[in-house]
Formats: sequence, structure tokens, C-alpha cells
Amino acid sequence: MIKAFAAFEPHGELKPFEYDPGQLKPDEVEIDVQYCGICHSDLSVIDNEWGITEYPVVPGHEVVGTIGKIGAGVKHLKVGQVVGLGWHAGYCNECEPCRTGDNNLCATAQATIVGHHGGFADKVRAAANSVVPIPEGIDPESAGPLFCGGVTVFNPLVQFDITPTDKVAVIGIGGLGHMALQFLNGWGCDVTAFTSSEDKKKEALELGAHHTLNSRDPKEIEAAAGRFDMIISTVNVKLDWNLYLGTLKPRGRLHFVGATLDPLDINVFSLIMAQRSISGSPVGSPLTIARMLEFAKRHHVKPVIEKFSFDNINEAIKRLRSGHAHYRIVLHR
Amino acid sequence: MIKAFAAFEPHGELKPFEYDPGQLKPDEVEIDVQYCGICHSDLSVIDNEWGITEYPVVPGHEVVGTIGKIGAGVKHLKVGQVVGLGWHAGYCNECEPCRTGDNNLCATAQATIVGHHGGFADKVRAAANSVVPIPEGIDPESAGPLFCGGVTVFNPLVQFDITPTDKVAVIGIGGLGHMALQFLNGWGCDVTAFTSSEDKKKEALELGAHHTLNSRDPKEIEAAAGRFDMIISTVNVKLDWNLYLGTLKPRGRLHFVGATLDPLDINVFSLIMAQRSISGSPVGSPLTIARMLEFAKRHHVKPVIEKFSFDNINEAIKRLRSGHAHYRIVLHR
Repeated sequence: MIKAFAAFEPHGELKPFEYDPGQLKPDEVEIDVQYCGICHSDLSVIDNEWGITEYPVVPGHEVVGTIGKIGAGVKHLKVGQVVGLGWHAGYCNECEPCRTGDNNLCATAQATIVGHHGGFADKVRAAANSVVPIPEGIDPESAGPLFCGGVTVFNPLVQFDITPTDKVAVIGIGGLGHMALQFLNGWGCDVTAFTSSEDKKKEALELGAHHTLNSRDPKEIEAAAGRFDMIISTVNVKLDWNLYLGTLKPRGRLHFVGATLDPLDINVFSLIMAQRSISGSPVGSPLTIARMLEFAKRHHVKPVIEKFSFDNINEAIKRLRSGHAHYRIVLHR
Repeated sequence: MIKAFAAFEPHGELKPFEYDPGQLKPDEVEIDVQYCGICHSDLSVIDNEWGITEYPVVPGHEVVGTIGKIGAGVKHLKVGQVVGLGWHAGYCNECEPCRTGDNNLCATAQATIVGHHGGFADKVRAAANSVVPIPEGIDPESAGPLFCGGVTVFNPLVQFDITPTDKVAVIGIGGLGHMALQFLNGWGCDVTAFTSSEDKKKEALELGAHHTLNSRDPKEIEAAAGRFDMIISTVNVKLDWNLYLGTLKPRGRLHFVGATLDPLDINVFSLIMAQRSISGSPVGSPLTIARMLEFAKRHHVKPVIEKFSFDNINEAIKRLRSGHAHYRIVLHR
């Protein structure tokens, strides 16, 4: 039996929940969970915000642990190895994205916490090819958030061939944004943070931003016309997107990793006149996660975390809901 | 003196208008106009739809003619040469886009018909580097529309590295779309036309589409989920863009060359889940126009035109306003 914490209804407290995972499949591994980050999408699934939750749900998709059991067909991992597991716990392995290494774009990928029990547990199972070894030199305690939030902001740099001479801005210096600043600084870019307060400004500069712009001052944003090659938006609120579009260079890209529910009201002229793009992307593939970990090690990119024990899981969730977490929360044994 | 036709007020009839162009500058050429296409953006400028018109305005930016005079500094063109002139009649030549061959993205490019007199005239002047020689084998009579409408739909194929294995769809089979189908067919792509009537369907297939989809049947569009690498929208009306986004593959692109005035109501989830992009682009650079002409010659791409003499210019404009032009209108002497 796996001993987990589950939500039984939207907005419900997590309660102890045991389940029998059955026989380990040949392509699976079982991870003994040491740490698990809490991500905003755990809250969205607990609350059934996207209408796809299956209760009881065991959240947790920023897992760090050691491999406890290994399926008969798995050759590239071994028992005792330190690994991580993110948003996806399996892929179809047959579709075009899967066959070209873009498993993260597989339309039938198995989400770790939708129709599958996640990492708020002593053990979690996943397809071996969704699990990524954590290299020595990466601190396991703070590594969990790299597997969802981290790769979500690292992935666009790979996908869109960002180069070290590019000027890149980040909207939203929170759980995702604070990692984006570190990655972009390591990537060699000119890094700007859009921030809303003096406190955040100071922290943004410490995290790797070279410049800050006040996101509450339209004039300051307008004065940055034509400056950026890419803007990465990590927020889930509605902003004046056309104002931000104006800060992009010709061929610039406004890229969304934060899932704002309001439709984007985009002025098509602003796209046409300067050949600008708007885009979005989800988490990265396991290959991209592996590249990210190697990069994070070399450039000392590290999530800033608050720690809670698994026994205090409901307090941890309350803290995340408060919006004051600084910047990510990780559960430990 | 140059003998032209000008509009003196929004929606006004064109009337004869003479102006003195002054001394020819060293970097300019003067074209003896033989043919000039009429484009929807001529109407937008006549009507001051974009608020940038300077009256009296001489429209006309799909010019074909021979070089009559040549500036002292111009080495690469010669008197008598057959050339074309499109939306731009000059560039700053100093900005980053200009210096990397992307003159079409120059923020201070000189529009041919805004603050400059265009091709509804016996002569028109332009910076020599905005003028492109028309190769032998291209019919001058129908070449005008290539210089604005044509390059507007050809340019995205170059900009976004479209390959012959891509599946590309076109929304709007009119002045721009009927050239897009021909270019895409020549490019080797799998070509789909979104059409609204049986008549258009037949013509779309003749122009180079391999498939058609009924743009008025949401179910038919939904059934095409995940099919296209790129959709090029040439229309200036509001459609259910999220419905069309759903027909894109992972990494697919919905690209706008038609300037719809309504904001695009885009669902950001649809972008994020499949790493889709939305973008726009204007006309192409002179280099891209030259590549297009060579390509059009090899692949027998030819605008379908209706002809009017310059003396019947107001009838020609009335015909374009009617929406029934089939597909582009060209003025001749």
C-alpha cells in the first residue's frame, strides 16, 4: 500500500489516503519520495478549476526521491538512484511529438496528478522515461520546483533559440519568475524584470535581473518601446498585453507560461507591423529537463524555497494559497 | 510635372492632380508607370481609415513600369529597365532591420502612398533600393499585385521556414488568398483552403489547393483538429480564432496578414498546451520580393486580374469596393 495525502472534494483539506498501486509494470519505476514541491497547479487540480480532477486526488508533481523499485524492462535507471518527476508521469510514445523527443507535447500524456496519484505520498509510480536522474551537485531538497515551475520557464529558451545577445524580460517575479531570472542570467542574456514594488525590485536584481521596470507605470513601459526580443509572462492575471507588445523588437515574441483565464485581447496591427509573435508553452520534455538540470548545476540556479514537513501539508497549502510563499514551497519527510 | 489621380477627402472620387516632384535625388529613380494594381489598402488610405492619410493623396503601390530617370548615385539599375514598386518607396537604411536586409520592418520606412505620391500617375519616384527589377518571363500586365498582395503572402513562407512537407491552410480566398494558394502549391506543401461557397471551392482547387474546408461549418473545422503546421489568414473580419487554433498541430502557427480591426480573443490555454504561436507580418523586403519573382516565374504563379484603364480609375475603385473583384484589379494606360 502507498500512504498518501488526498483531497476528496474541491477546496477540501488533504487527508491521509492509502491505495494499492498493483503490480509494477515493466516500463515503470517506483520512487521513494523524499521531497515534493507544491505548485499552483496542485491547487488548481485540488479545486477542480480545470474540470478534469478525479477525486480522491493525490497532488504533488515536483517529486524528488530515490528509485525503490524498477520494472523488468527498464535498463537506464537503477534502484537507489536520485531522480525527479514532474507534471508528466507517462507518454503514449507513439505520436509524432513523442517520436521526435517532444513528449511534453504528446496529446495523451499522463499527467502525474490527473487520473494518476501524485507525489504527496511515501511512494509514487511513473513511466521510467518520464523520470529524470538528478546529477550530483544539485541540492535534492530544493530541486523539486525545477521539475515543473523550473522547466516551464527554461523550456522557452530552448524552444525559441534564445541567444546570449538577446534582451529578455519576465513578467511576474514569483514562483516561476524567480527561476526565470536566474536561468536567463546564466544564459547570458540582458535580463529585465517587470516588478510591482520596491521590495520585489531589489530581489529581482539579486536573482539575476540587470534592469527592472515598474509594471504599474504604463509610461515606464511605453518608454521601453522596441526593446525586447522576448517577454516571458508567468502571471495568471489579465494585463494590458498590447502595452507589453509595444516593448518588443521587430520579430519579438510575447510568450505565455502563465495560464491566464481571460482571453488575450490582441491588436493584430501590432503583430503585423513588426512581425511579432504571441505564443505559449507547457512544461518541457524529459530531455529538456535533463538539459536544464545540467545547466542549473553549472550556473548555480536554485529555487528559493520554504520548507514544510509532510505532516503539516495543509498548512503548507494554506501558505501557498495566501500568495506570500517566498518563492516555492517544498514538503519534506 | 507628374500627372496623377488624387483623392482630396475621405471616400472622395479620384480627380486629376498634377505635382512637381522637384529634382531627382541621387539615390532615387523615376518610373514611367505602365500598370498599377489597386489594393484594399489604397481604399483604406483614400478613406483615412488608419488616420495617417495626407490629402491630396495619390494612391497606387503595385506599380509596374520602366525606369525613366535615374539618380546620380544609382549603379544597379538602368534607364528602360522593367521594374516594380510596392508598399515601400524608401527606407532609413540605418536601423538594425535595414542593415540586416529586413527593410520591410524599418520603423521609419517611407510608405509609397502616405506622405508620398504613389503610382496612380504617369510617373512615380522611389528610392532605388525599394524598386525591384522584374525578370523576363513574368507578365508585366499582371505583375503589379505581386508587389504588395503577393509578397505579403509569400513572405511568411520565407520568414517561418515553411518546408514542402508542411500542411498549410489559407483563410480567405480573395485578392491575397488566391496568390497564397498558388505560392503554397509551388512551395510543395499540402494546401487547404477555407472557403465559404461551392463556387469558391472549385476555384480554390484550380488555384492550387489540395483540400477545402467549409469555413461556415464549425463541425467541419473541429474535425480538422491538429492538422496544420500553419494557417495564413488574409481576411479583415472577426472569426472564431480559437476554433481555428484547434486545427493547428503542436508548434503550429496562426499567422495574420489580413488586418482585422477587432482584437483577437485568444484562449491562452490553447497556445500553452501545444506550444502554438500567433503572429503577423507586413509586406516583404526588396530582397524577398526578388526571391518571390524568381519563384513565381519558375512555378507560373500569376495574379488573376481584371483590367481597367487609368481613365476609368473611379469605376475600378467602385468595382474593388463592391467586393466582387476577381481577384485583383490592375490599371493600364
